[in-house]
Amino acid sequence: MNDDTQTDDPGGVDRRLFLAVMAGGAGGAVLAGATAAAAWPRGSVHPPTEVGASGHTGATPPATADPLAMSPAAMDQSSKARVDRFLENATSPITQGVGGTELEWRMEAGVRTFELTCQNARWQVTPDQTVDALTYNGIVPGPTLRVVEGQPVRVRVRNDLDESTTVHWHGQRVANDQDGVPYVTQDPIQPGSEYTYEFTPGPFGSHMYHSHHNAADQVGRGLLGALLVEPADPATEPRYDEDYLYVLNDVLGGFTINGKGFPATAPYTARRGDRLRFRFMNEGQMVHPIHLHGLTLEVFARDGYPLPQPFRCDTITVAPGERWDAIVVADNPGVWAFHCHILSHAESPEGMFGMVTAIIVE
Amino acid sequence: MNDDTQTDDPGGVDRRLFLAVMAGGAGGAVLAGATAAAAWPRGSVHPPTEVGASGHTGATPPATADPLAMSPAAMDQSSKARVDRFLENATSPITQGVGGTELEWRMEAGVRTFELTCQNARWQVTPDQTVDALTYNGIVPGPTLRVVEGQPVRVRVRNDLDESTTVHWHGQRVANDQDGVPYVTQDPIQPGSEYTYEFTPGPFGSHMYHSHHNAADQVGRGLLGALLVEPADPATEPRYDEDYLYVLNDVLGGFTINGKGFPATAPYTARRGDRLRFRFMNEGQMVHPIHLHGLTLEVFARDGYPLPQPFRCDTITVAPGERWDAIVVADNPGVWAFHCHILSHAESPEGMFGMVTAIIVE
Amino acid sequence: MNDDTQTDDPGGVDRRLFLAVMAGGAGGAVLAGATAAAAWPRGSVHPPTEVGASGHTGATPPATADPLAMSPAAMDQSSKARVDRFLENATSPITQGVGGTELEWRMEAGVRTFELTCQNARWQVTPDQTVDALTYNGIVPGPTLRVVEGQPVRVRVRNDLDESTTVHWHGQRVANDQDGVPYVTQDPIQPGSEYTYEFTPGPFGSHMYHSHHNAADQVGRGLLGALLVEPADPATEPRYDEDYLYVLNDVLGGFTINGKGFPATAPYTARRGDRLRFRFMNEGQMVHPIHLHGLTLEVFARDGYPLPQPFRCDTITVAPGERWDAIVVADNPGVWAFHCHILSHAESPEGMFGMVTAIIVE
Repeated sequence: MNDDTQTDDPGGVDRRLFLAVMAGGAGGAVLAGATAAAAWPRGSVHPPTEVGASGHTGATPPATADPLAMSPAAMDQSSKARVDRFLENATSPITQGVGGTELEWRMEAGVRTFELTCQNARWQVTPDQTVDALTYNGIVPGPTLRVVEGQPVRVRVRNDLDESTTVHWHGQRVANDQDGVPYVTQDPIQPGSEYTYEFTPGPFGSHMYHSHHNAADQVGRGLLGALLVEPADPATEPRYDEDYLYVLNDVLGGFTINGKGFPATAPYTARRGDRLRFRFMNEGQMVHPIHLHGLTLEVFARDGYPLPQPFRCDTITVAPGERWDAIVVADNPGVWAFHCHILSHAESPEGMFGMVTAIIVE
Repeated sequence: MNDDTQTDDPGGVDRRLFLAVMAGGAGGAVLAGATAAAAWPRGSVHPPTEVGASGHTGATPPATADPLAMSPAAMDQSSKARVDRFLENATSPITQGVGGTELEWRMEAGVRTFELTCQNARWQVTPDQTVDALTYNGIVPGPTLRVVEGQPVRVRVRNDLDESTTVHWHGQRVANDQDGVPYVTQDPIQPGSEYTYEFTPGPFGSHMYHSHHNAADQVGRGLLGALLVEPADPATEPRYDEDYLYVLNDVLGGFTINGKGFPATAPYTARRGDRLRFRFMNEGQMVHPIHLHGLTLEVFARDGYPLPQPFRCDTITVAPGERWDAIVVADNPGVWAFHCHILSHAESPEGMFGMVTAIIVE
Repeated sequence: MNDDTQTDDPGGVDRRLFLAVMAGGAGGAVLAGATAAAAWPRGSVHPPTEVGASGHTGATPPATADPLAMSPAAMDQSSKARVDRFLENATSPITQGVGGTELEWRMEAGVRTFELTCQNARWQVTPDQTVDALTYNGIVPGPTLRVVEGQPVRVRVRNDLDESTTVHWHGQRVANDQDGVPYVTQDPIQPGSEYTYEFTPGPFGSHMYHSHHNAADQVGRGLLGALLVEPADPATEPRYDEDYLYVLNDVLGGFTINGKGFPATAPYTARRGDRLRFRFMNEGQMVHPIHLHGLTLEVFARDGYPLPQPFRCDTITVAPGERWDAIVVADNPGVWAFHCHILSHAESPEGMFGMVTAIIVE
């Protein structure tokens, strides 16, 4: 509350951000973005911060040759510069590419039909890091597929990679020959060929799709995405105002949330009182305990299945392959850090990195 | 469903397996095995696929010198060969030795009495890998001890190793001097000597026994087994048709399930509609999230204790020392992969390995 | 029960300890300590084994140059010597320094006011290992702050380190500008300066405070402590007789419980029938499954939030950032090992080390 040695305004950054975003700017504003998002179809998933189209890629402050040899003042300077980039990213993306956007579909004789292409792509993880990725439709995570419990789905998969692949519908009770395990349920999809999967979605909830062929490598490098199955009866799930993905990976480009590392991770925005649904999914190879500051996680589903009794916590540990769904009521205004609490996945002498983002409550 | 570029029969492998096993063969068949198993005493634990006595040990396809340099076609070929070996293993074991078989006992003045010998042994993990193990009675996991809550038990332990050891009854509330912690509750059992443990089992449920002396090494190398305590009132636990172990280790011979690595892991078999009980136990040093395709885990006990409310999931994370019990209703026919979702414990450029098995539903 | 080859008295160590502690001795006795502790204010946290003031620092038996080359007899000897040191530690501390002691406060105009100084200190982890730590008030964990839900708190933080820092109140729903995230909610506290945090505690339960600046390093090296928030209505939590901390770290000085490694970890003491409350907190960077012998954990809160239904277990996995609260009823007399079940965090060829302690039930 008081600080007799600091000349800067403590607690001022979020106010500066609030002023900045309320003033609008190139591409829109964080909070305006939240308002705009409210006009989306109820329950739609939107990767936060799609505002801004220019997406420059200016570098973050240069890393020192030896972070462990940084002076404390240099560490502070680097730490501040990264936070500034993160806040800038809230209104004007600092990297190219947005992962996990919802994929459009068309109805073919009563079947919701999607098209996925497995393709090599360059993917920008942070302003300083662009990697060679294996992708669905060029983005990481791949496009989000939204389907409805009990309504048939078809997914046409074209393999434009240089290697074989398959797609597994992680969490779904499909017919065995649609399960995507090479040489067990199908032959892998050869380079240059196509394969069509068909299934009737269920159970409902937060699920995933990913490669099941040489998967430690292929999933790690980006062949992963979210598969969201709405319940046949929408009243089955808790009410929410925003639908947010929180997909973890720890292979491609290091520690990432929705394909990006801090400061390029997008903050999640909310109006005060909003009920935010988070869909945590781990597509990496390590356990990640995700900690939320200043707000409460009300966890209501595990692997899509409703928990018999929801529980509250501030740290939800997500193991590889697991999904957890939680409601966060945005009842405390401010910028709330939201990060992996294995601190070596989130903080370095140069400042925060990797699995760090925030919820910004108006 | 359609595939205009693949010449092979998609979804055909399980049909081939079904045809193969229905045709019978040397030692029996997967599905016939399931039927035979139904004749076992209700509630008995049987390591799956004990059918077949010849157990040849032919090598899997030769590994390349540098898996990362494999061509995609070579990767596919190697992947297929491993699956073929796994399916072969379902009807005719491809390695020597079966771990976790139930140990016979005799009644001595009202006390169920078991005999364990700690002994060095060679243990075949996969067709290509045989390791020096420390074992109980020559197998890994050691023999399964089945006891009843409240009915006294005696275990005579002979130490034929070159080093001292003790046995800890992990999960049991024994008298302190039977707890097996060296120099805290007893002196260790010297090479060439014996020690007799006595306790009245409780609580009921899925427990373990293992070395507590230099245990990172001794347990890692094989001194571990399952201790199954039936409740005094059988109605206390859910009903099930088959009782299956799923013991994890990540030291001896790499990533193993019941002492074997894929493709030598045994599939679990079921008739449609069977209720399968799985007893997950982690005797390794890493957390393993076990993912089941196409079916649902109904988790009803933790460390043997009934959960106040069972929950459903498809990925159950098992930390070292933990036990989890789940019912799987075999309501979806096919061959369902069942593996650790830390993909580097399950998939390599050469195909699946390590912590991978399957449930085969007739 | 019988052992026809051992000449030493099996099960005798605990009896020796019991005799030793019942006979009293320099500084008091384990069980007498438990009795004395009962005179403390109800619900107070006391790091076990504060009895004894001399605290000598004699070395443990010399480690061999190559533990893997130790003879079995040498392993046994080393193992026994470590247990002896641990039991000695129960009555006469074998290391200097006790972490996590409760911090005194004073009331300033209705605000419970604490003072913390961030300072470099030498910290003795085991008799053989003293490390350079970053500390609050010179101890690791830092002093425990006990506050009451809804009653305002002030914490004056002085930074006497050579680098900047901040304090985050992990688990608390503070106002955003008190959250302690550098450049997001405040500028970091520069060396030589002070900062005052103010908040009204909530939610109640077991929480933590720690650095949020270069935190992988600063928390790892000791800038961490427990923040215990009593509920406004004491009847909200289960009844207990003793209030025990179990704070995990895996950076500073290796694998530690409350800042110490075995054999310098303090055992927890209980009279038969006591209800012990354990507050598990992980400030490290790895998941630790904590296993209790011979007794049962009744887990009733997660991250401070009461669980809708408590559950029982013997192994509670604590991920970084998580807190779990459990009651242990001391209904089984003896010395019960209580350790991380990732065995490489607890056992070596030279005997037990790191994350091992015990509950001693009279």
